[in-house]
Amino acid sequence: MAARASLIEPDGGKLVELVVPEMERAGRKTEAEAMPKVRIGRVDLEWVHVVSEGWASPLRGFMREDQYLQSLHFNSLRMEDGSVVNMSLPIVLAIGDDDKERVGGARDVALVGPNGDLVAILRRIEIYKHNKEERIARTWGTTAPGLPYVEEVITSAGNWLIGGDLEVIEPIKYNDGLDHYRLSPCELRKEFDKRKADAVFAFQLRNPVHNGHALLMNDTRRRLLDMGYQNPILLLHPLGGFTKADDVPLDVRMEQHSKVLEDGILDPETTIVSIFPSPMHYAGPTEVQWHAKARINAGANFYIVGRDPAGMGHPTEKRDLYDPDHGKKVLSMAPGLEKLNILPFKVAAYDMKDKKMAFFDPSRAKDFLFISGTKMRTFARNGENPPDGFMCPGGWNVLVNYYKSLQADETEQLSAALSV
Amino acid sequence: MAARASLIEPDGGKLVELVVPEMERAGRKTEAEAMPKVRIGRVDLEWVHVVSEGWASPLRGFMREDQYLQSLHFNSLRMEDGSVVNMSLPIVLAIGDDDKERVGGARDVALVGPNGDLVAILRRIEIYKHNKEERIARTWGTTAPGLPYVEEVITSAGNWLIGGDLEVIEPIKYNDGLDHYRLSPCELRKEFDKRKADAVFAFQLRNPVHNGHALLMNDTRRRLLDMGYQNPILLLHPLGGFTKADDVPLDVRMEQHSKVLEDGILDPETTIVSIFPSPMHYAGPTEVQWHAKARINAGANFYIVGRDPAGMGHPTEKRDLYDPDHGKKVLSMAPGLEKLNILPFKVAAYDMKDKKMAFFDPSRAKDFLFISGTKMRTFARNGENPPDGFMCPGGWNVLVNYYKSLQADETEQLSAALSV
Repeated sequence: MAARASLIEPDGGKLVELVVPEMERAGRKTEAEAMPKVRIGRVDLEWVHVVSEGWASPLRGFMREDQYLQSLHFNSLRMEDGSVVNMSLPIVLAIGDDDKERVGGARDVALVGPNGDLVAILRRIEIYKHNKEERIARTWGTTAPGLPYVEEVITSAGNWLIGGDLEVIEPIKYNDGLDHYRLSPCELRKEFDKRKADAVFAFQLRNPVHNGHALLMNDTRRRLLDMGYQNPILLLHPLGGFTKADDVPLDVRMEQHSKVLEDGILDPETTIVSIFPSPMHYAGPTEVQWHAKARINAGANFYIVGRDPAGMGHPTEKRDLYDPDHGKKVLSMAPGLEKLNILPFKVAAYDMKDKKMAFFDPSRAKDFLFISGTKMRTFARNGENPPDGFMCPGGWNVLVNYYKSLQADETEQLSAALSV
Repeated sequence: MAARASLIEPDGGKLVELVVPEMERAGRKTEAEAMPKVRIGRVDLEWVHVVSEGWASPLRGFMREDQYLQSLHFNSLRMEDGSVVNMSLPIVLAIGDDDKERVGGARDVALVGPNGDLVAILRRIEIYKHNKEERIARTWGTTAPGLPYVEEVITSAGNWLIGGDLEVIEPIKYNDGLDHYRLSPCELRKEFDKRKADAVFAFQLRNPVHNGHALLMNDTRRRLLDMGYQNPILLLHPLGGFTKADDVPLDVRMEQHSKVLEDGILDPETTIVSIFPSPMHYAGPTEVQWHAKARINAGANFYIVGRDPAGMGHPTEKRDLYDPDHGKKVLSMAPGLEKLNILPFKVAAYDMKDKKMAFFDPSRAKDFLFISGTKMRTFARNGENPPDGFMCPGGWNVLVNYYKSLQADETEQLSAALSV
């Protein structure tokens, strides 16, 4: 087995999984049943999943106040041995006044999932104030209304946060036909070893893959080969947790990604497609650090960072929420990520002369057409074709069919509404 | 001379002062006169003063974008040698579109003070976007209207920031009769050496000193003697830059502090009173780091931190803007401040039984009266006396006279208004 040339150890040394071993589950469940219960939501459950598999290692559960404050103010945690690990998003669990009262002085609580199942035990809990305004301002750099994660998760959340160490009773499964794509950091590391990877480069995405992305990934592989790596492996790593309503849903994206590999746009031999179970914050420079850090834990040592990573339009003003260059800059200076090799995105656009996606050449700028995610979705929604060479036909069809089904749904809903 | 037991080196090693040596001033002024000019405001000038004396060392001027982003996201800067220094407030200079256009592609610019004097040269400038919303949200953890520093400095500021290395042509003077109190970090270090200090404990304040403060400072000295220090020196270090309108003005506070020393409430032999020239942000846990870091640069190795340091009421809600314990917690975990000895404030209150300020004893809570800064100001404003033993009479008189003069001014203004 070839050793990876510059393997980055997961934060905190050994990766710790927090799922209870099979033979202990029954006992742990009985124990949990006697504890005060806290009901958690869908996105909370995604975080339980994320933390339980070690993506956020060395974090062992939902943050206690000292971790929360360090995350909010410093985007990093100082460990007992003095080392610093990156931790840019507050990974916290909110509870309401009723929950707080019911929990009382208990040392441990049981977490109950959205379906009523016992999901996990939270040990040695600490309950502290949830100042939503401050959390939002320091995480997003704005408090404007309309931030998707805020509206979905924070606005309706309780005024307390509960931290503690997680013990997850059973591995989290979604039973949506995609669980086989959900490899844990340990499983991914094993897979990289099996493929004898000596470099792993990660590509985070929440959109369909077009030929510009593919160009970039293939070019990165070529650069790594030029640097002397024998077998660079691409981790194509779509985000699988909460995304905003107008993003393309996960199942459609996974089908689209499959077509891209089937059509040979990306090489299946040197690509691993897997789902990153984290929910999306759309918090730009703050979130891109989390995206990179989690991939280090999964064994990546190169991270491709694009224009405006984890960014979006400002919710109330006509501009990008973040400076498109800040993500890359902040990532390159982030505490705890010093060892990560950051591969800045070259800008790809549609070259109208060569009729293909190509790296933008400023000397003949007028030949290039920039097709944003929004524009791509508009094409697909209207049943229009994008320019030839923008995306492989198999992948494009997946999108067109998805938007057709949406319109059919809307028509059905409209008829239903009219018939009432 | 006794060596200080645990002297903390100023950030970046040697403290660098950025004032041009006397014999080079004329030449530098001529050079500056040929440069594009940027007019700066009163608070900008306070920052020029602060930076030029090395309080923010190793910062050598107004922040360039890489420093600004690190300050905003990580409250610290990573230096070239990999070391981390604390830098929690963005120390930046804003300019408008006109300035930016006039500066054009110049490498250096001259800064012109509020009185039209040439103040400094800014070398190797970098101009970048001033996203006020993001700066405010990440610095204060809120974007609510009514933050004093925001209203005074940021709201009306330009949409660009200009960073670069400062060369200050002459030492900044205010000619307000208080300049002799404005010792630079170098001068303070010399003074501590002269007094053969083996521990220096700093007390940051922007309010009059009452006997509760004095109790705390005297108790700290006693604790340091118990710890084996031979000659602990108190740095009583009132903030001298911008403060909000209802704070007691600097000249009145300095007069009040003098009385406290005259009346023997604090021991003049072991106390140095000096002005800290920084403007006040009222940014709670973010700002307390700056307050501590600047005092390290001036030679302090112990820092007294109280309830809700640099805090204030929320500008639009009926609550403290910050959790009163967060300042102390954040300070204790702040990157780059690991070596500072933090002395948490014990809560002092007026003991109605013993008729003096004393450390609060929860076992007989009902004997204690808490007198906030606001309450104190209300007493003085209404000409009422606070309980005996709250403040030395000499100090109290200074406040009463100040508020009387305010009322006289108001009466005069009222008569003037009525006579129109």
